[in-house]
Amino acid sequence: MKVYLDYAATTPVDPLVFSKMKPYFSQHFGNSASTHYWGKKAREALEKSRLTISRLLKVQPEEIIFTSSATESNNFILKGIAEAYKDKGRHLIISQIEHPCILETGRFLEKNGFRVSWLAVDNYGLVNLEALKKLLSPETILVSIMHVNNEIGVIEPLTQIGEIIKDYNPSILFHTDASQSFGKIPLNLSQSRIDLLTASSHKIYGPKGAALAYLKKGIKIEPLLLGGGQEFGLRSSTSNVPAIVGFAEASQLAYKRMSVDFLKAKKLRQKILKSALVLKGVWLNGHPVKSSPYILNLSFDFIEGEALMNLLNEKGIAVSTGSACSSEKLESSHVLSALKINPSRAHSSLRISLGRYSSEAEINYFLKELSLAVQKLRKISPFKIN
Amino acid sequence: MKVYLDYAATTPVDPLVFSKMKPYFSQHFGNSASTHYWGKKAREALEKSRLTISRLLKVQPEEIIFTSSATESNNFILKGIAEAYKDKGRHLIISQIEHPCILETGRFLEKNGFRVSWLAVDNYGLVNLEALKKLLSPETILVSIMHVNNEIGVIEPLTQIGEIIKDYNPSILFHTDASQSFGKIPLNLSQSRIDLLTASSHKIYGPKGAALAYLKKGIKIEPLLLGGGQEFGLRSSTSNVPAIVGFAEASQLAYKRMSVDFLKAKKLRQKILKSALVLKGVWLNGHPVKSSPYILNLSFDFIEGEALMNLLNEKGIAVSTGSACSSEKLESSHVLSALKINPSRAHSSLRISLGRYSSEAEINYFLKELSLAVQKLRKISPFKIN
Repeated sequence: MKVYLDYAATTPVDPLVFSKMKPYFSQHFGNSASTHYWGKKAREALEKSRLTISRLLKVQPEEIIFTSSATESNNFILKGIAEAYKDKGRHLIISQIEHPCILETGRFLEKNGFRVSWLAVDNYGLVNLEALKKLLSPETILVSIMHVNNEIGVIEPLTQIGEIIKDYNPSILFHTDASQSFGKIPLNLSQSRIDLLTASSHKIYGPKGAALAYLKKGIKIEPLLLGGGQEFGLRSSTSNVPAIVGFAEASQLAYKRMSVDFLKAKKLRQKILKSALVLKGVWLNGHPVKSSPYILNLSFDFIEGEALMNLLNEKGIAVSTGSACSSEKLESSHVLSALKINPSRAHSSLRISLGRYSSEAEINYFLKELSLAVQKLRKISPFKIN
Repeated sequence: MKVYLDYAATTPVDPLVFSKMKPYFSQHFGNSASTHYWGKKAREALEKSRLTISRLLKVQPEEIIFTSSATESNNFILKGIAEAYKDKGRHLIISQIEHPCILETGRFLEKNGFRVSWLAVDNYGLVNLEALKKLLSPETILVSIMHVNNEIGVIEPLTQIGEIIKDYNPSILFHTDASQSFGKIPLNLSQSRIDLLTASSHKIYGPKGAALAYLKKGIKIEPLLLGGGQEFGLRSSTSNVPAIVGFAEASQLAYKRMSVDFLKAKKLRQKILKSALVLKGVWLNGHPVKSSPYILNLSFDFIEGEALMNLLNEKGIAVSTGSACSSEKLESSHVLSALKINPSRAHSSLRISLGRYSSEAEINYFLKELSLAVQKLRKISPFKIN
């Protein structure tokens, strides 16, 4: 049996999505910047896709900039806002548990004349709102806090965060990386006072190669990709129309199925958590309630997460020890460190991420193999559960 | 009849390419950074693609960095090299007829502490080699000159350019944007002493969303996209495996068909040129011999290129007045200006670009409609051909 439980890393393209994309590879293949028939066909598809997604987010179409990935959107937003607003101030606030593409961009900005405050989180991964209040300064231009964490699934309180920022100074921009929540968890941009948002296609059964940056009207930004002036002059490059068409279809499908998929995942996650806890010496990393139903992060006393993952992989089960991006590195997770989880527990962690195609049968198989693997590894461990 | 003669803007995905890509959307959909079965499948495809392309270019696999587009590659290379070598010097030489993504990046660098010399071309579009010699300075770190120009098809003498640069100082880096030549025109990287190269998938019947930056071993570069550390730490972002698989397949196919496709295009281009010249008051923009067989740029006295293009578009024929990127702008072409073609002739220009599926029948139809359109427009023009 093959069981994929790594949906937070990437998802298969939904067949409905693929069928919508297909005509744009070889038939309606035009460059959307061309004025002729083929160009027009491509441009219509591009703008229809923009309209579809803008309606789901309840924003204006021209506030959606298509990019090639969430990494590109996050680099574009952080570097582009910093550059455009540097005369106003040179201070950013970024949470400690952001995805590496935000963290590394923050470090890049630190080396280039900006000051970054790395906002702490509590033991559950929730950002420290009191600390946020103290960090806000007249120099602050941007606060970037993700919606759902990719390793532990904690849902950050965006509405409260937005209130705190805007109460201090309405002109400080608020960005959220919604890569793990867009199409999965309800999100109200205006209620949370969000100015900038990142969302990705391949996390919601759309193709790789498409993502978006939402930029609220009136916000200035320096482009990352310069050239032909596509995407309102903010992101030059031939538009990847097939991927964008797929992204729009995947978004629509995700919104339509949001509550059904959510409830199913929640039930399956509960089932895994309940069964896993029976194994003893098992700990939930993340928040017991404020969590995405799609992500479950557990630590297993006296077991290397790496070893557990490998044993499960051998049984055809795809799980991970952290994000896909860092899966080849052996460093301890920066997210679990920020939660002040001790290193040995952090090293014994496993991320299980559920998705649209996860089934009871798959979970039963996974739980059986998990139990066997845990027993096996604990048998060879010098430490014992008492 | 529908006739696509805008292959320089973009190409349809070849059915052979599409069939190779297809399994990677919904079946082998894994994140190539994941260590499990799905990740491994994706990683194998990614590395096989890198190997395929590296062999065609006769370089090492680790010298190929996959990106999302030629625009991204060009931005990455110019900004990344400038940043990495700024302590060595802050001078770049860029030809005046580069694609907008090179020109705009050059202008960005000018605003950020670098000096750019804009290398002139002659009336045919060939870069001025004497001027190049004079521009080289102890401060020069990079020279960027395209292989084939996207508007007029002129082939730049890369080998002579490489010699001049390296004779002056072997440590000055030589970049060429080969977006219009890779897979179409023979290119010998070592003979031309090329250190950095850009090539794109969607210009050679591969999908949009994949391109490459070739970086000769030992060259330092600052990444443009920071994050999870993919592509040897030089280009973070989840790898777009389906698109990269398509790019590799398209490259292989293009190399295999290179001389057949080349000769067919050359014959068709000759046919168009010969027939067009019969219309009188028709001028070739570009070089009579040193030209890609895929691009033909003509000016028609007393006719607006825009009007001619629109009439042809109405007849189902896709041609353009310049590059797709600038087709919605009404500015005169920067390429034709650099050739010192007078503004009225520049405004009367038309780009016809041929490709793999161009046929005699299509060209016959095009030539008939071109003749009718030229007659029609000249009839309403206040000026007359004598």
